[in-house]
Amino acid sequence: MTQATQVCASIDIPAGEGRAVHVDAGQRVKIIDVEGRQVGDVFAFARGDVREYHSASHTRAHVNRLFPAVGEQFVTSLRRPILTLVEDSSPGRHDMLIAACDAARYAALAAPSDHASCAQNMHDALAAIGLSADLVPQPINVFMDIPVSNDGALTWETATSRPGDSITFRAEMDCVLVVSACPQDLVDINAGAPSPLRLQIENGATA
Amino acid sequence: MTQATQVCASIDIPAGEGRAVHVDAGQRVKIIDVEGRQVGDVFAFARGDVREYHSASHTRAHVNRLFPAVGEQFVTSLRRPILTLVEDSSPGRHDMLIAACDAARYAALAAPSDHASCAQNMHDALAAIGLSADLVPQPINVFMDIPVSNDGALTWETATSRPGDSITFRAEMDCVLVVSACPQDLVDINAGAPSPLRLQIENGATA
Repeated sequence: MTQATQVCASIDIPAGEGRAVHVDAGQRVKIIDVEGRQVGDVFAFARGDVREYHSASHTRAHVNRLFPAVGEQFVTSLRRPILTLVEDSSPGRHDMLIAACDAARYAALAAPSDHASCAQNMHDALAAIGLSADLVPQPINVFMDIPVSNDGALTWETATSRPGDSITFRAEMDCVLVVSACPQDLVDINAGAPSPLRLQIENGATA
Repeated sequence: MTQATQVCASIDIPAGEGRAVHVDAGQRVKIIDVEGRQVGDVFAFARGDVREYHSASHTRAHVNRLFPAVGEQFVTSLRRPILTLVEDSSPGRHDMLIAACDAARYAALAAPSDHASCAQNMHDALAAIGLSADLVPQPINVFMDIPVSNDGALTWETATSRPGDSITFRAEMDCVLVVSACPQDLVDINAGAPSPLRLQIENGATA
């Protein structure tokens, strides 16, 4: 039996904003960089209890890589698989080392106190679907390019993703996914000009 | 004025156990690998509110390095300096990528269900001084040797620290420090045989 992938929902995320979606186990979420060079901060929570969340430090121990590749899993704070990276049409540069931008980050950059942040976007997006989390987990920063040199030094580069590039995750459990179109306009990761992302929720293909 | 460093307290941490200590801003904490080749999981919490804790992902963004070096700071989930690495007599291999071992880790390794873990040690050590935390932050894993290859692959090596080697942190705020002498005996990071650590709390030197 062959069942084509079917798009169930498409959600536009305006530049600098965030959205939360319910995703069922087996469904796929495609994150599209509409205009290119835009970072997305991705958070994943267990559907029934947001105190269980995707944990970068547990995922690194699970896959033994700094940055997961296509086919590899992401696990929660209880070491349960929550997402798998199944497709990537971008140049494949994604970060899993850096915290979400937040009020303290923008204060240090001398931004106005009401500057949007991925941390606040996460809280707002969860609140919009009636949820709240006590912490801001370290996100998967899709399209964010943080090269690591041989001596362990990190540099912050502008995203290399092109208009229409996408990365697709499959949910391994019923979960809540939050994606923030990073509002960072004071360092160059988004080429200085945040732009929108688009989410597509797809029913999984069966070959 | 020169004031010599003065040891205020010395705390033995038996193999596989954890201890929590109050540390005042300006004091130094020396972690000694008594017998060598022993990993210590280090957690730091703000004294007044353990919901603020040392955050590896914020520290990486602060120092732009995978693994902080002598002289560099560690910051909290609110991006405030909490520790500085001031001395290191070991070969200098310390990890800040890997989650604390926990019940799920040992279940996957087919260990008995009552196997000690750094995560449980953290909870028990905090409880012993009347505190509790809702999460287990990603620790600083002193003496833990996790080389990163050019393609981002991680390997788990036996600690290279020698008997008596130490690493010393200065507290940048009043904090609670938890150190667990990692009980891992099923992979080789502790040479298969967990051993003790010792903490020394020192009043800082003034030159």
